[in-house]
Amino acid sequence: MADNQFDLVILGGGSGGYAAALRAAELGKSVVLIEKDKVGGTCLHRGCIPTKALLHAGEIADQARESSTFGVNATFEGIDMGGVRKYKDGVIGKNHKGLTGLIKGRGIEIVEGEGKLVGPKTVQVGSDSYTGTDVILATGSYSRSLPGLDIDGQRVITSEHALELDHVPDSAIVLGGGVIGCEFASAWTSFGTKVTIVEALPHLVPVEDEANSKQLERAFRRRKIDFKLGARFSKVENTDSGVKVTLESGDTLEAELLLVAVGRGPVSAGLGYEEQGVTVERGFVVTDEYLRTSVDGVYAVGDLITVKGEPHLQLAHVGFAEGILVAEQIAGLPVAPIDYPGVPRITYSQPEVASVGYSEADAAEKYGADNITTVTYDLSGNGRSAILNTKGAVKLVAQKDGPVVGVHIVGDRVGELIAEAQLIVNWEALPSEVAQLVHPHPTQSEAIGEAHLLLAGKPLHVHE
Amino acid sequence: MADNQFDLVILGGGSGGYAAALRAAELGKSVVLIEKDKVGGTCLHRGCIPTKALLHAGEIADQARESSTFGVNATFEGIDMGGVRKYKDGVIGKNHKGLTGLIKGRGIEIVEGEGKLVGPKTVQVGSDSYTGTDVILATGSYSRSLPGLDIDGQRVITSEHALELDHVPDSAIVLGGGVIGCEFASAWTSFGTKVTIVEALPHLVPVEDEANSKQLERAFRRRKIDFKLGARFSKVENTDSGVKVTLESGDTLEAELLLVAVGRGPVSAGLGYEEQGVTVERGFVVTDEYLRTSVDGVYAVGDLITVKGEPHLQLAHVGFAEGILVAEQIAGLPVAPIDYPGVPRITYSQPEVASVGYSEADAAEKYGADNITTVTYDLSGNGRSAILNTKGAVKLVAQKDGPVVGVHIVGDRVGELIAEAQLIVNWEALPSEVAQLVHPHPTQSEAIGEAHLLLAGKPLHVHE
Repeated sequence: MADNQFDLVILGGGSGGYAAALRAAELGKSVVLIEKDKVGGTCLHRGCIPTKALLHAGEIADQARESSTFGVNATFEGIDMGGVRKYKDGVIGKNHKGLTGLIKGRGIEIVEGEGKLVGPKTVQVGSDSYTGTDVILATGSYSRSLPGLDIDGQRVITSEHALELDHVPDSAIVLGGGVIGCEFASAWTSFGTKVTIVEALPHLVPVEDEANSKQLERAFRRRKIDFKLGARFSKVENTDSGVKVTLESGDTLEAELLLVAVGRGPVSAGLGYEEQGVTVERGFVVTDEYLRTSVDGVYAVGDLITVKGEPHLQLAHVGFAEGILVAEQIAGLPVAPIDYPGVPRITYSQPEVASVGYSEADAAEKYGADNITTVTYDLSGNGRSAILNTKGAVKLVAQKDGPVVGVHIVGDRVGELIAEAQLIVNWEALPSEVAQLVHPHPTQSEAIGEAHLLLAGKPLHVHE
Repeated sequence: MADNQFDLVILGGGSGGYAAALRAAELGKSVVLIEKDKVGGTCLHRGCIPTKALLHAGEIADQARESSTFGVNATFEGIDMGGVRKYKDGVIGKNHKGLTGLIKGRGIEIVEGEGKLVGPKTVQVGSDSYTGTDVILATGSYSRSLPGLDIDGQRVITSEHALELDHVPDSAIVLGGGVIGCEFASAWTSFGTKVTIVEALPHLVPVEDEANSKQLERAFRRRKIDFKLGARFSKVENTDSGVKVTLESGDTLEAELLLVAVGRGPVSAGLGYEEQGVTVERGFVVTDEYLRTSVDGVYAVGDLITVKGEPHLQLAHVGFAEGILVAEQIAGLPVAPIDYPGVPRITYSQPEVASVGYSEADAAEKYGADNITTVTYDLSGNGRSAILNTKGAVKLVAQKDGPVVGVHIVGDRVGELIAEAQLIVNWEALPSEVAQLVHPHPTQSEAIGEAHLLLAGKPLHVHE
């Protein structure tokens, strides 16, 4: 039984935890990173990376199916789920190996095991303990369920189980039309599953600008993905061949399986947080905008937290940003709080949904409805979108005669476009400043340029 | 025989000409647009758009061929060139229809026919003439050949012929390793053609940063595309089944056909330019940085021109920018010269090559080799690139302790990433300003973020 002293003890080796470790080590701190499973966390092993691999396999299946549209003779024969898992696991393995090398290369100690906060600055793992001048809590999140809805891992599953399926289900009900639900609905549809999404709110991806939600709904209708909006789950029962879901309306749906994608809850129970004086609300560790918890020298980052009680974006790149912020703060560098609305968000369904900044509704609330303006550029005017055979739009939200405060895009592959929009929104660019830079032709990024030309009062390829 | 008076007479309805027409009409000018073929010009009918359609068909062929890598069972059977042309022509038709509607919708008169400058401000088309207060020359470019190299349209062809092939050639020699040559080499290789590129300069895409050229060369080697660098064409002869090309070294190459892709020359001969006093050098109309020719009130834009005798970027979006600049200038709006190094360039091969700003060599010349710095982020560290199964890199060129002056990228689909880089370079962003914005995960755009984190001295996912 050893007590080990470090400048920084980090509990949890996911995106937030390992980013903090890498940056702190770079700044000369001695760091221990405690992880019960594998470094990389949910994102690398059970989240972002594997789901995007499934979606890319889905894209390849769709393109083979539709190959004759492009003059290519190819026959789609089916999905080999063993092959998909091998591909996905290959991508994970490559990234995990790289990450492990990176962490060790910076002299960070990795401890494998379940840690628990046993003093305000001490984490115990088995019989060993690790005490830090500072501590970061980064234990992440898990797939939540609803009261009375039991996950059996066979017919009623979470995204973790969905990633390990050994076959393509004939049919599936997806409970929850947020990012995770829409991504699985999309990938499974590409694989050949008949999917029905059940969403309690009035729209798919309900935290997006309503225009984005409606574009996605139109696209999903074209893909024959069923969805029930404003529909609340009541119960699920097993049938001979699968599950029967009853909604509060009394309607019933049957399918081979039910994917529960109703959000992710914080991993904080039984970890000693409250016992050591860390304030926790509904399971989330509460921080201020500098990610400080209620205990001096104890910080928290990532999916685990709520900043000042606000709902928190559970995204890997938010974890990265938070981890870096805390590491720099501990090292005495000047830091600024993260501007969360300025963080880009992507749903990697087919089509993709990407946004940064305020939705029209949020901007109206913040600036007053009379003080904002919006424009929409339809991808039907974009040559590259025609080549890709995708539909969608770019919507801008701006202050009247002022900067762009929100960019909202739907279409195949548009997730890569939001990086430019991130600069526009975060640097408070005026429409005219973007409009003067003519975008490369023929790209989908031109649609961002065209939208800014329109907003600047000098539309180019726009029917007036 | 009528003489028609307009505020603005535009000779040539390609990217530069029609952009000028649209913007001038928007600003209240009466405009006539004279086009001998179809509005949209080379880009829409014989250039950017159709080549990108071929390349996308190639991507679909490659993905079907490699589908098992991703767990998808699909069989690639071959290319149906009739189907590829139908797809390509469908994309062109849709865009042409949209563009024609746009032009007519803004009240611009379209005159179909060959125009000739018969007075300093007068263009004659058949028996009609059109006189403008201002005139824009926008007659574009054609596929050039070499002295003694005759294009027969069958075995020795240009890109125009290549777009209309009715079959996939078994083998092809591509003379010229610039953008057009590399794009056809890539598409044909995807279609199953055995390709050899012959380039007189020491690298493929020789105007790119050498790092980009080398990345592309590595990728082409992996794709079994042969290329002879520093190899000069001597002669071509017909054989029983195709062509035999002799190089200056005496080496010979045989193939079914030879694609001549040695650049595009200006369309200016016989159009009356010099007779009306317009200065022409080697066929190019000479302008100043405001695109004014030597004749007052006569402007020129697009592939046709040389600005102050410099080599000019023959790109559709340069034409757009120039057309808009001239239209606004004529309407009395304040305008600024185009910063050509700040215009993004993309080669849409597989992998794509994209850049904006200065190459390392050009930056060293401009700022002094001691005053610049570079970093390279390899896409092997990028999760999304691993999912797409692509290799490549992002290279930044910056002034020491100063702004980023060049961004150079190679990899599948990276053309869409250069829009963000365009803002960074044109807005003279500091590495730290980009580094503080954490890019969305998992995207290829993260590689741009990581490169800036590295340059700002705070590398995240980088082995040191």
